[in-house]
Amino acid sequence: MDYKFVGDTSMWKDTSDVNMNMIEFVTSPNNPDGQLKKAVLRGSSVKTIHDYAYYWPHFTAIPAPADEDLMLFTLSKLTGHAGSRFGWALIKDEEVYERMLKYTDQISFGVSHDTQLIALQQLKAIFQGNNGSDIFEFGFTTMRKRWEILSKALSESNRFSIQKIEPQFCTFYQQLRGPSPAYAWLKCERDEEEDCYEVLRENGIISRRGSVYGAERRYVRLSLIKTQDDFDLLMLRFNSLFSQENYYGIETIM
Amino acid sequence: MDYKFVGDTSMWKDTSDVNMNMIEFVTSPNNPDGQLKKAVLRGSSVKTIHDYAYYWPHFTAIPAPADEDLMLFTLSKLTGHAGSRFGWALIKDEEVYERMLKYTDQISFGVSHDTQLIALQQLKAIFQGNNGSDIFEFGFTTMRKRWEILSKALSESNRFSIQKIEPQFCTFYQQLRGPSPAYAWLKCERDEEEDCYEVLRENGIISRRGSVYGAERRYVRLSLIKTQDDFDLLMLRFNSLFSQENYYGIETIM
Repeated sequence: MDYKFVGDTSMWKDTSDVNMNMIEFVTSPNNPDGQLKKAVLRGSSVKTIHDYAYYWPHFTAIPAPADEDLMLFTLSKLTGHAGSRFGWALIKDEEVYERMLKYTDQISFGVSHDTQLIALQQLKAIFQGNNGSDIFEFGFTTMRKRWEILSKALSESNRFSIQKIEPQFCTFYQQLRGPSPAYAWLKCERDEEEDCYEVLRENGIISRRGSVYGAERRYVRLSLIKTQDDFDLLMLRFNSLFSQENYYGIETIM
Repeated sequence: MDYKFVGDTSMWKDTSDVNMNMIEFVTSPNNPDGQLKKAVLRGSSVKTIHDYAYYWPHFTAIPAPADEDLMLFTLSKLTGHAGSRFGWALIKDEEVYERMLKYTDQISFGVSHDTQLIALQQLKAIFQGNNGSDIFEFGFTTMRKRWEILSKALSESNRFSIQKIEPQFCTFYQQLRGPSPAYAWLKCERDEEEDCYEVLRENGIISRRGSVYGAERRYVRLSLIKTQDDFDLLMLRFNSLFSQENYYGIETIM
């Protein structure tokens, strides 16, 4: 009741003069573009919430252990069980902790026993595989490969581009590692193709409109966290789009 | 944001002069006392929400088919699957319907597919038994029997009393039927036993404090929707309390 959304802090030119109560919500890695983010606002009137839904080795290098004042986690993207609606928070301020506890109790009468049992089974299943590291190995290998396949296919294209993510040192794997994001943040580069969502839809590819994320219609989000069949089909349709692109190039020259 | 709780309408002396926007929440049967309730407030500035969580033949006579403007239902008390967090609403006003849809989408990203599948299985299981009537037969018979056992035991007591619920004609069973509520609304009658919750707790019975429902500490809610073992244990402990009562009576006389 006491707060309203006043926009994306990363777009702010001047963040030095924050003297009203503000809460900054930091999604890191960011959805949709997979970039690691840091809080922008500082000062005694600022509180920060870190959304670490995607802060797992499948999706990003882990430059440092998570150690912020208020951090949100969820099974949703850790194991792919968004439907469990199960998450947890690590909170340093006891008063904030008490208020969050009260909030979850009022909003949904707490986490149901069913959900707790389901989440427990899912976490147990994770720990059965090599003390928990199997899921990260599988997740990282799968996501990294998909990103490489998509990047390679798009490197030949002038019509579409995707975000660049720099390789980073990962404290989990103790080595430099390349990007493996959950989503491709795709841009339609041709002047006349302003509505990227429609361009893809006409070619049998369902994306999410950039406008959902406050961006121009030239951008869309493509999910890479799908079954292998769905990903293969996505690449099949993309490759057919790219071969059209080459044909279009030749035709123009003639 | 635009509304605040202003108390229990059934306690209001004068309800004729409602000229500000009000929403009345009608829980029928009522939790905790199992009484059928009707809306109290009338007028063009009043909207009414009927909570029919307990409006099933296991818990109450059904005097008429449910036909209010806005009615809430849940699997929670129909099948005992509170943990599914699955409910539905019947809404006559399309604009209200659209806003409720938006609310559920924003509050929990809609009902998860997992939950939808679980609820579907539960509803299918109901319809396998005699086209859906088995669950009501089982529910009514079980709850009616428990109420009779508890009522009979308490009829001998001067220390405790429970609510009276009148027999009513039920359009579902097409006959007059006695009460079978989900909860006993128990009162400690002795002057010195003001904290009924503590009196029961000392005797191995866990109840819910009346203060949770805005009542004095002399009242508690006892759940009758438990496993049969739990109910049998409850009666075992009650009967031991009643035999103390008789002993106490004799001691006083001596």
